[in-house]
Amino acid sequence: MRLARIAHPDGVAFASIDGEGDTAEVLEIAEHPFGQPNYTGRRWPLADVRLLAPILPTKVIAVGRNYASHAAEFGNEVPAEPMLFLKPNTSIVGPNAAIKLPPASSRVDFEGELAVVIGQPVKNVPAAKASAAVLGYTVANDVSARDLQKSDGQWGRAKGFDTFCPLGPWIETAVDPADLAIRSEVDGQVRQDARTSALVHKVPQLVEFVSAVMTLLPGDVILTGTPEGVGPIQEGQQVSITIEGIGTLTNPVVKA
Amino acid sequence: MRLARIAHPDGVAFASIDGEGDTAEVLEIAEHPFGQPNYTGRRWPLADVRLLAPILPTKVIAVGRNYASHAAEFGNEVPAEPMLFLKPNTSIVGPNAAIKLPPASSRVDFEGELAVVIGQPVKNVPAAKASAAVLGYTVANDVSARDLQKSDGQWGRAKGFDTFCPLGPWIETAVDPADLAIRSEVDGQVRQDARTSALVHKVPQLVEFVSAVMTLLPGDVILTGTPEGVGPIQEGQQVSITIEGIGTLTNPVVKA
Repeated sequence: MRLARIAHPDGVAFASIDGEGDTAEVLEIAEHPFGQPNYTGRRWPLADVRLLAPILPTKVIAVGRNYASHAAEFGNEVPAEPMLFLKPNTSIVGPNAAIKLPPASSRVDFEGELAVVIGQPVKNVPAAKASAAVLGYTVANDVSARDLQKSDGQWGRAKGFDTFCPLGPWIETAVDPADLAIRSEVDGQVRQDARTSALVHKVPQLVEFVSAVMTLLPGDVILTGTPEGVGPIQEGQQVSITIEGIGTLTNPVVKA
Repeated sequence: MRLARIAHPDGVAFASIDGEGDTAEVLEIAEHPFGQPNYTGRRWPLADVRLLAPILPTKVIAVGRNYASHAAEFGNEVPAEPMLFLKPNTSIVGPNAAIKLPPASSRVDFEGELAVVIGQPVKNVPAAKASAAVLGYTVANDVSARDLQKSDGQWGRAKGFDTFCPLGPWIETAVDPADLAIRSEVDGQVRQDARTSALVHKVPQLVEFVSAVMTLLPGDVILTGTPEGVGPIQEGQQVSITIEGIGTLTNPVVKA
């Protein structure tokens, strides 16, 4: 099932998406998408609604240097244990919303990532039971002010600006995250082209590791790390990140 | 005004605290404490309610190395600009709730800090107007797994464990944060004894700096950094942090 959050003619709602292409429809969900969704019976053509970030999490936990290829491109080692940092939920925007380049940075990079969306409150989940804690998967762009990331040391600012966490286009609940193609394009040029099978710490291990530290709540998001090929984005460009079996997240880039 | 969040005989509510000592009372606030609070008319003796963390913020932004004396005790420079990191809101506990030492760490430190509580949604607040964006001030303990902080590099894990952000006992709305005594004690022994006038980046500058990065929402908390004297806490100990004009935050320490 593809779960989305939409702005429709009468307001904002969660919805599931039925069908593909021109005939796709959105079916409005009452309240929230956790557990068995209740449908209101209202539906619209997908083309008539605006997709929002598919979830507004209480927290976004991100994992640094989780593809050996990306760690290497900046001369870093792969950490023996996942290296965690947080992005504020105010950095989240949806598909087609603009990434705003802040004046404080002169180099802002895209980072295409598989995002895990948690489905229920959990603490200390063993990896073998992690999939039961997961609602589904979406696509994320861990936008990063590379210059500030380096000068600050801690990444709270560099990765925390408003609009620095595009999420979407929807949450796919029925995909196995173990070996999915992930591809990032800037203005149609392929910049990242990898597979999630190259993740150093896999999704079940990440859920175990993070949930041993902090209680995860429904809707919380874990960004699993970015493969090699990250690079700067400029005003006027468009970034698209596609993950096989999920979809494509596209965002234009503007000056703040 | 002292704003608290309380567990009273019928449930949980925001409240203001009237009076001192044995005659202090809590006055229940309807809904939320932002703007002019509406009182329900219910009141209890302070001794009959349990104080909770005075706010559940959407985010906790913390500032590293913001007292020169603390930066020096670990051989670090004071950063020219505030160094930001985030703590998950699942790490928050209230007064007298236990700090739980996780098995993953063999050295957990207390860090007494002045905490700024934001009062309204703001972005790009100039320092001169920062006080209008602030609801008040409370006391925080930025509990840190020192060994993991060092080995991980990023501090998301080391400072993100459940119970690693005690807040309280209440929010004082009528205090000037510029020059307050801040003192931390472990089992009654004074370990930190400083003044907020020694903050490298002052409260108004921090509000300006953080709000230039991310939208701040009502209830969001900025931890302003810790002075020298941090050190390990052990099972069975009790940590008390007192800030002049606000109050004392006390938490026992247990094994998770």
